[in-house]
Amino acid sequence: MGSTQDESLSTFKILVATDNHLGVWEKNPERGNDSFETFEEVLAIAVEQDVDFILLEGDLFHENKPSRQCVLRCMELLKKCTHGDKSVQFDFLSDAAENFKHIKNPVVNYMDPNLNIGVPIFSIHGNHDDPSGLGQHCALELLSSSGLINYFGKTSDLKDINIMPLLLEKGETKFAIFGLSSIKDERLFRLFKEGKVKMLRPKEYEDKWFNLMVLHQNHNKQCGMINHIPESFLDNFLDLVVWDHEHECILQAQVPHESAPDSFHVIQPGSSVATSLCAGKAVPKQVALLEVFKRKFSITPVDLKTVRPFVFAMVSLSDHDLDDATSIMENSPVENFVEEKVRDMIKESETQITGHSKQPKKPLIRLRVEFSNEAQMFNVVRFGHKFAEVVANPEDMILFKKEKKEVKKDELGI
Amino acid sequence: MGSTQDESLSTFKILVATDNHLGVWEKNPERGNDSFETFEEVLAIAVEQDVDFILLEGDLFHENKPSRQCVLRCMELLKKCTHGDKSVQFDFLSDAAENFKHIKNPVVNYMDPNLNIGVPIFSIHGNHDDPSGLGQHCALELLSSSGLINYFGKTSDLKDINIMPLLLEKGETKFAIFGLSSIKDERLFRLFKEGKVKMLRPKEYEDKWFNLMVLHQNHNKQCGMINHIPESFLDNFLDLVVWDHEHECILQAQVPHESAPDSFHVIQPGSSVATSLCAGKAVPKQVALLEVFKRKFSITPVDLKTVRPFVFAMVSLSDHDLDDATSIMENSPVENFVEEKVRDMIKESETQITGHSKQPKKPLIRLRVEFSNEAQMFNVVRFGHKFAEVVANPEDMILFKKEKKEVKKDELGI
Ligand SMILES: [Mn+2]
Ligand SMILES: [Mn+2]
Ligand SMILES: [Mn+2]
Ligand SMILES: [Mn+2]
Repeated sequence: MGSTQDESLSTFKILVATDNHLGVWEKNPERGNDSFETFEEVLAIAVEQDVDFILLEGDLFHENKPSRQCVLRCMELLKKCTHGDKSVQFDFLSDAAENFKHIKNPVVNYMDPNLNIGVPIFSIHGNHDDPSGLGQHCALELLSSSGLINYFGKTSDLKDINIMPLLLEKGETKFAIFGLSSIKDERLFRLFKEGKVKMLRPKEYEDKWFNLMVLHQNHNKQCGMINHIPESFLDNFLDLVVWDHEHECILQAQVPHESAPDSFHVIQPGSSVATSLCAGKAVPKQVALLEVFKRKFSITPVDLKTVRPFVFAMVSLSDHDLDDATSIMENSPVENFVEEKVRDMIKESETQITGHSKQPKKPLIRLRVEFSNEAQMFNVVRFGHKFAEVVANPEDMILFKKEKKEVKKDELGI
Repeated sequence: MGSTQDESLSTFKILVATDNHLGVWEKNPERGNDSFETFEEVLAIAVEQDVDFILLEGDLFHENKPSRQCVLRCMELLKKCTHGDKSVQFDFLSDAAENFKHIKNPVVNYMDPNLNIGVPIFSIHGNHDDPSGLGQHCALELLSSSGLINYFGKTSDLKDINIMPLLLEKGETKFAIFGLSSIKDERLFRLFKEGKVKMLRPKEYEDKWFNLMVLHQNHNKQCGMINHIPESFLDNFLDLVVWDHEHECILQAQVPHESAPDSFHVIQPGSSVATSLCAGKAVPKQVALLEVFKRKFSITPVDLKTVRPFVFAMVSLSDHDLDDATSIMENSPVENFVEEKVRDMIKESETQITGHSKQPKKPLIRLRVEFSNEAQMFNVVRFGHKFAEVVANPEDMILFKKEKKEVKKDELGI
């Protein structure tokens, strides 16, 4: 895409990222900077790739009321990367007073005559940084009030949702972005069922628009039937859905239900930091470069190189022939076995070292140890001391889980 | 001042205001807007008077952790009034990296190439909005990070204070502002005593500078000998001291100690909102227009017209011949007497109506009733119901205080 000059002048180039969870582990001396380092990297990629704008899909902040330091660090990064002389090459066609009606001064920041914005950011809110408290404001408004971001998709009427898209134009490409900031899944599920979620498509040139939807909701049916949003709820006129909230990074654009092959594609950029230590968060972290020319799009994943190495593994003690006996002076055979496993994982984590100067080197290690006999457990905090200098989370590397009964039955041949 | 054209081009015109206490009574449906209305008026005066800059002396926020709504309303007002095309007519000569060293991007906002600032604001912090929490940041930094204000006078080393002035120049006038943000009085008293507070005067043109000091500390000896800062601690090279924290408005520039008639003058703009209902807060509220030409200055008070009327009075029941007896059906003679007094005060409050469309009309009323006999007391909340429609604080208009024993002794002729 963007191969001929004409096409290039009409191609939107967008950095799509999400779930930066700024401030997660903020008070942890080892891990406190992780979210900020990677957010800075994300912004730097946008500048380096010379994108038209950045699209964020919520959970920019980990805490609903982020610490003052967290908000300040975010503001400083945003100011550094988004202010500047680069001229913005697309037009804003929709009515800012509608798109940003929750803001006192509803104007898209790059059109504000008193600000010099080189890289505009558009963002919806997530469930972590949703509106709360007096006046129902969210932390993103601290950023949009001073023009650091363009916060959109805030629902003012929780009984009747009208999604007014951002309408952007660059040369021959018309780009509509339908943003829906996070709402309780159950409520949104019901509103969809009742036909109370309306997408206000532009009437003019209806077939010319590239239609993108951005939302931050449960996607996976396993969250519960009425606690997720089925893809079938979304309108088929959409071309692409950026669906976030779940943290695993899935950037190969997926066609959804087989029954409707002409329907929209879905991507899930996932989080830029490991907020908890489970398998899905150990998937390599990327952001997406989305290019749109007329109604065609392409996605190029860009690896994030400042993400702390993270290795997750599971082991079931009953698969191994280990003696439970232990003397007071020695480690148990189980502990020795686990220690060896952990050392292997640390070794494995080295393959995730990228060479980026700001990547933290000490890995996150999480080994899930399934046991059948409580005598096999040992003190994981004391165990962690041996790794204090080489691992970022020595105190909670090991998670003991009792093996499920079913497994036992199976083993017994019942 | 500013009478000849030359003189006018060299005259700094500054709006001096303080203690706006944004967010005070925020949750009170009647009074919640008061602090914002008056802050907006203060900013509007600055614009209307075409000042060079605004100087604030702390307690911009009432709460150390102001609500999100409060910060947002403040940001919106600042953006509206300080952004704009008016060109700033004075030069910033000092090293911003020193003056604003607590900021990541230390630059005076009107020199930031990415912001269009018409009316710069310089502010120190007060005791209400002082640094706290992770990283010791204060709420003003949420404003300075995005360039809405220039926050200065933050002390990084609480054992050794070096006050690096802002050095400003307009035509022939050289203006040095020594800012000292609020510190615990006891600590600052000791540091002054130990000679650990240094004023870093510019060496060049030493005698040409108009030297202003801005501080936010107890001024009154009655706060306790080591809990206030005596004027004698301050350097005599100063021309003017803007001394805030105490809320009474005192704008007739006062020469301090008679022993040093050539010393500095002091003004105390005081708060722009009544944060508590005592006599000092019932003094009419003003801001100061300070004009400085070379080493001469003049001060013009400007009345604030959006301030809610407030009448304070005291009455001692023993000065009046009132029967304590009461029946269940009727008000007591004391209650009738107090009610009449309150009605007089409400009448008196009407003289404070300014005609400003945004001035709230329902007055604050505080009557301090000194009693000698507890039977004279009545239920002040029930009493307030009669005034619910005409007074802003019906529930706490009346403050009963037991007359001091001394008074009684005196009455008894002992
Ligand atoms: Mn998230
Ligand atoms: Mn989420
Ligand atoms: Mn105050
Ligand atoms: Mn104060």
